[in-house]
Amino acid sequence: MRAYDIIYKKRQGLELSKEEIEFMINGYMDGSVADYQVSAFLMAVCFSSMNENETFYLTDAMMRSGDLVDLSRFGKLSVDKHSTGGVGDKTTLIVAPIVASLGCKVAKMSGRGLGHTGGTVDKLESIEGYKSSLSSEEFLEQVTKIGIAVTGQSGNLAPADKKLYALRDVTATVDSIPLIASSIMSKKLASGAQSIVLDVKCGSGAFMKDVESAKALASAMIDIGTKFGRSVRALITNMDVPLGLFVGNALEIYEAVQVLSGKGEKNLTEICISLASNMVSLALNIDIKEAKSRVNDAIASGNALNKMKEWLSLQGGDISKINQPELLLNAKCKKEYKAKKCGYISNINAECVGIASMLLGAGRAKKDDIIDYSAGIELKCRYGEYVNEGDTLCVLYSSNEALFEGCEKKLNESFSFDNEKPSESKLIYDTL
Amino acid sequence: MRAYDIIYKKRQGLELSKEEIEFMINGYMDGSVADYQVSAFLMAVCFSSMNENETFYLTDAMMRSGDLVDLSRFGKLSVDKHSTGGVGDKTTLIVAPIVASLGCKVAKMSGRGLGHTGGTVDKLESIEGYKSSLSSEEFLEQVTKIGIAVTGQSGNLAPADKKLYALRDVTATVDSIPLIASSIMSKKLASGAQSIVLDVKCGSGAFMKDVESAKALASAMIDIGTKFGRSVRALITNMDVPLGLFVGNALEIYEAVQVLSGKGEKNLTEICISLASNMVSLALNIDIKEAKSRVNDAIASGNALNKMKEWLSLQGGDISKINQPELLLNAKCKKEYKAKKCGYISNINAECVGIASMLLGAGRAKKDDIIDYSAGIELKCRYGEYVNEGDTLCVLYSSNEALFEGCEKKLNESFSFDNEKPSESKLIYDTL
Repeated sequence: MRAYDIIYKKRQGLELSKEEIEFMINGYMDGSVADYQVSAFLMAVCFSSMNENETFYLTDAMMRSGDLVDLSRFGKLSVDKHSTGGVGDKTTLIVAPIVASLGCKVAKMSGRGLGHTGGTVDKLESIEGYKSSLSSEEFLEQVTKIGIAVTGQSGNLAPADKKLYALRDVTATVDSIPLIASSIMSKKLASGAQSIVLDVKCGSGAFMKDVESAKALASAMIDIGTKFGRSVRALITNMDVPLGLFVGNALEIYEAVQVLSGKGEKNLTEICISLASNMVSLALNIDIKEAKSRVNDAIASGNALNKMKEWLSLQGGDISKINQPELLLNAKCKKEYKAKKCGYISNINAECVGIASMLLGAGRAKKDDIIDYSAGIELKCRYGEYVNEGDTLCVLYSSNEALFEGCEKKLNESFSFDNEKPSESKLIYDTL
Repeated sequence: MRAYDIIYKKRQGLELSKEEIEFMINGYMDGSVADYQVSAFLMAVCFSSMNENETFYLTDAMMRSGDLVDLSRFGKLSVDKHSTGGVGDKTTLIVAPIVASLGCKVAKMSGRGLGHTGGTVDKLESIEGYKSSLSSEEFLEQVTKIGIAVTGQSGNLAPADKKLYALRDVTATVDSIPLIASSIMSKKLASGAQSIVLDVKCGSGAFMKDVESAKALASAMIDIGTKFGRSVRALITNMDVPLGLFVGNALEIYEAVQVLSGKGEKNLTEICISLASNMVSLALNIDIKEAKSRVNDAIASGNALNKMKEWLSLQGGDISKINQPELLLNAKCKKEYKAKKCGYISNINAECVGIASMLLGAGRAKKDDIIDYSAGIELKCRYGEYVNEGDTLCVLYSSNEALFEGCEKKLNESFSFDNEKPSESKLIYDTL
């Protein structure tokens, strides 16, 4: 078998066999297939696409390139969720304790943030004492005991995906449905959950610009998961509307506590309830209506919030600030950012807000930057709202006053205004 | 400017600017654009193609990556020809002295052979004393004086094409009309001739499988040449029929002498006359009928053969064997290769015959192998002929008897037989 022939076959639009796809992926990992051959192959895939079988084989080869977490002891109760490209995705902090309080098993390995995206592990480390590096045994034992554990990625999950993604990122071969679907699913499958809920974002700020292509991506991922015997459901959600009002580490813990106390921002709450309901429905094999009612009860009764406290305590975290959440908003310096003109807010660019927050110290520009957990941005306005010149749009939080200026510059790019009230857009387009 | 954006633009099928194409080519040469980006770019070109302007800019960037030979002193009289992928292309040895004897200027830099293809310089070095490394001054002086000089490539012509071709060769991105056209033309343009005749092969053994795609390639090359102010004409010729009866270095010199003496094989003679007539027609700006009549006269009068002797002598070659050409067939060992069955010869695979000849010592498997100039293969049969079992198909020539066995094995793959007489196919499909 030769890489040349496999590239040429895909260039001609022909279907590749399992062996051919494994030859490319394994060869890339062991160095026998060169990166310039892999990039030509990926470009051919962007044009010729891959059918369901090929996408399955590609996912399988990437999944098997590293460690596999074995959660089979939990059966369908082991549940995971994934959002495609979101800024400051705090939903994990909210839905994990909800579904755990209802009997699901959440064994989650999460990453750290880089650039404008925040990592779940970073957010959790804003809680004093939180231990984010559990051994495999501790991790699984805790899930068995209380239904939830969130640890940093220790193992080597789907390294082929990591290597391929780095190559796609510099060769303009990122946005291809089979490549995106196999990339996401190889990691999700390697991390072991039997039930998986996907949040596929669509809109101008997302990879998938319209509902149709978001649905196509969702279908491809569901198809892969099903072929691996997992239960998969997908929500198609709107990325034009930023989720929630807080960006930053301690700030997002605060907002999670708000949602779990029934006092969260409307859209964020709606998405979290929908994600959690689908997770519960899959894991407990109950209909979505029943699942949603249990999720609402978990919040109303305080069980979900109590589960969060139980989880954080067991992982060593000091929960005194969870009991007095306003203490999570105690940065040394605060400043209001005010509207420079009047009008309806027609866009809040989530990526720009993410970068603005990073510039306050809340994120890392480079891998080994140190995070200011107290830093971040609180939005005081929402999409579609009318504001007057001088109205407060955000409050900036930081330990270092000198960082406000750079952040404000970035925020100037983040907001768009219009004379007309923008149309209300749907939050959740569809569930597949 | 970023390579990423240029790749993405081509992926989307958009037209690239001169600056963008130069950025990719110059960046590849200076290392600022990685090979894995270039290969992804090339694959995007294979799918999205390039229009006339882009192909022109690409050719220009590759042409300017190295030395440019200045033949402007000869004006339109400086003439060159190029064949797309031929085994043992001996036509240069024949057409060059013909057109030089008619007043054209042939300043040719030729390569050495590798694998199954023979190099013109190797063939010339089978003549004792032939000096194939002229200085620039000697080279141009000789062209001025007698109208012809053939030297090995000393300069650095279109190195970007060489580097790109090596990458295309391992990434399945060879067969794309704009990439092939720009590759050929960048070298032809850098070597300076003002009038260029192209021999575009088509058929099962060639890159271009049918007349339509061969015409498309020819048009693309004519268009490039015209944009550079050169006069270009192209013949579309049949590659299914092997050209001539001899493969090997001294053997091909013998066959060239035969054609120049009016005793050459029919198809080879026809192609050579057609190529030479078009070269003369362009260089002297006369119509093709008149040019053909002059070419026929040059052969009949012996002027073309005399020009060959003048050229070879002036470059130091011993022409005693040109005067007694049968001495060129004096290998130490000879062996007849006989038909193993009867039937009409339905195919003689030119590439296989080329490899069989190399196995006799006539070519190089590796770059620094030493050539046996006396070695090679003489075909005793032609396409479409009926042969009986035991008829002689070829005569093998070599200095080393031990090499016959390997050659015969390869020849077993070279011939196909059929019960029906194969249809006569055209030799020259068209002239553009």
